[in-house]
Amino acid sequence: MLDYKLLQALAAVVDQSGFERGAKHLGLTQSAVSQRIKLLEARLGQPVLVRAPKLAPTPLGRRLLNHVQQVRLLEYDLLDQIPALGEREQRLRLAINADSLATWWSPVTGEFCRRHGVLLDLVVEDQDVALKRMRDGEVAGCICATPRPVQGARSHPLGSMRYRALASPDYVSRYFPNGLSLDALSRAPAIVFGPDDRLQHRYLEMRGYQAPFPHHLCPSSEGFVHLTQAGMGYGMLPERQVARELEEGLLVDLDPDSFIDVPLYWHHWRHGGSTLEALTDHLLVASGAWLMQGPV
Amino acid sequence: MLDYKLLQALAAVVDQSGFERGAKHLGLTQSAVSQRIKLLEARLGQPVLVRAPKLAPTPLGRRLLNHVQQVRLLEYDLLDQIPALGEREQRLRLAINADSLATWWSPVTGEFCRRHGVLLDLVVEDQDVALKRMRDGEVAGCICATPRPVQGARSHPLGSMRYRALASPDYVSRYFPNGLSLDALSRAPAIVFGPDDRLQHRYLEMRGYQAPFPHHLCPSSEGFVHLTQAGMGYGMLPERQVARELEEGLLVDLDPDSFIDVPLYWHHWRHGGSTLEALTDHLLVASGAWLMQGPV
Repeated sequence: MLDYKLLQALAAVVDQSGFERGAKHLGLTQSAVSQRIKLLEARLGQPVLVRAPKLAPTPLGRRLLNHVQQVRLLEYDLLDQIPALGEREQRLRLAINADSLATWWSPVTGEFCRRHGVLLDLVVEDQDVALKRMRDGEVAGCICATPRPVQGARSHPLGSMRYRALASPDYVSRYFPNGLSLDALSRAPAIVFGPDDRLQHRYLEMRGYQAPFPHHLCPSSEGFVHLTQAGMGYGMLPERQVARELEEGLLVDLDPDSFIDVPLYWHHWRHGGSTLEALTDHLLVASGAWLMQGPV
Repeated sequence: MLDYKLLQALAAVVDQSGFERGAKHLGLTQSAVSQRIKLLEARLGQPVLVRAPKLAPTPLGRRLLNHVQQVRLLEYDLLDQIPALGEREQRLRLAINADSLATWWSPVTGEFCRRHGVLLDLVVEDQDVALKRMRDGEVAGCICATPRPVQGARSHPLGSMRYRALASPDYVSRYFPNGLSLDALSRAPAIVFGPDDRLQHRYLEMRGYQAPFPHHLCPSSEGFVHLTQAGMGYGMLPERQVARELEEGLLVDLDPDSFIDVPLYWHHWRHGGSTLEALTDHLLVASGAWLMQGPV
């Protein structure tokens, strides 16, 4: 068998982002942890960690971490059957898109995590990076907009998030006093999540506008809502995220007949143990109340 | 003088995260943009872009982008004096910590940006990375918790954000039915923003607890609030961010006598032009209503 003391040292250093913290986490000295990792590298004949500019696992290190996480999930199942073996605490490392985390994720998974004693390591990623993390074995599951699973994983459709073009009432009266003309759309500042966010572009194409447009960039779901509410721009927002702001009139729908539905998929390792399976079953049922069902 | 057509091509490709989008943004063909960047690299004898695994500027490319941004800020001042020169649109690239963006940033800067016609490129970063981005010239300003400016920059104290240990009422009755004993603190799941977030550790040290504790990791301000509200853990939250949840009783203060004040500083380039100066003056006054003043 592999020497899990060495692998555990690697996992602790990466999870805790440093040798000192990793050592503290394991209750070891820093030099003990450092020696274990050196021994691991000596046995493999290759580095498992890049030290600079930022501590990170090498591709080999990542494959080992992937394995450690899978072993932990299996151990967890075993602990379930033989409680005397030790403390039953489970960490699931998952990549979630920012808008899911800002809306349905916590209400849907909170009770599940409490009941199963699961602690979450959440990573917020756009969908392409999330799938790359699945492929590298850095996360055991992810929520993203791509249906096709990576090798060794399964994916399930969860439903769609509906995005609408929203703005503050004073913004609308300033930039669109006469409705959504192409001229007004070319001048009205929009808010875009980041360079990879094409929702705003898709919306403008739906309206027949394809040229550049002024925009703020704000890579934070909550920041996005705040910028919109402060009248800095209009933006494509998940309607569920701002139900209250819409109800209270802090935000208004620029274009009630138009929306964009973004389908979401749950991806998970095939052999991830019973907790990951239970989470999958739970998500498939419980996300239904939050996401639009049916073909998009 | 430098050939700004080449520099502009570099800036467009980096800003738009791709050759195709960069070209579209400039109204050029992709091959024209590609040739400009090749020419720039041939003249410099060094690459300005790394193409794989992700498109990114080299350190040399970053210095050039820094220069382009400074030139743009100066041009913007000139346009202010000679409006006939062209469209007065200004982009400011700033790094903001997630909690500021989730609370005071938009209400404080919204009106300023509208009045000055400023579009924001926001980058959400923890404080160490934010200062690195200042040093590399990737952003013209940042909000972070470190007072010491990088070379060529100034910093100003803005005030502090007050963090309190908050949880949902059902969480409190489940994990702390008899108050905050060390035993209860060792078992109650906390929520931590990421491996670099030490607020939870500082809070527990204030309570005399120094050993490991179970925790979720959630690197999103809004996700953090949602996890807390769903009863998944307790966490150190900026009291201003959840004023409403506290008022409505969705969250309660675990420990009303304890809080942690995190000071925030505004860092900006020294020679960043008049808009950056005006934003600095504005922030120093307007953030006062949101942040705690006085020594911490």
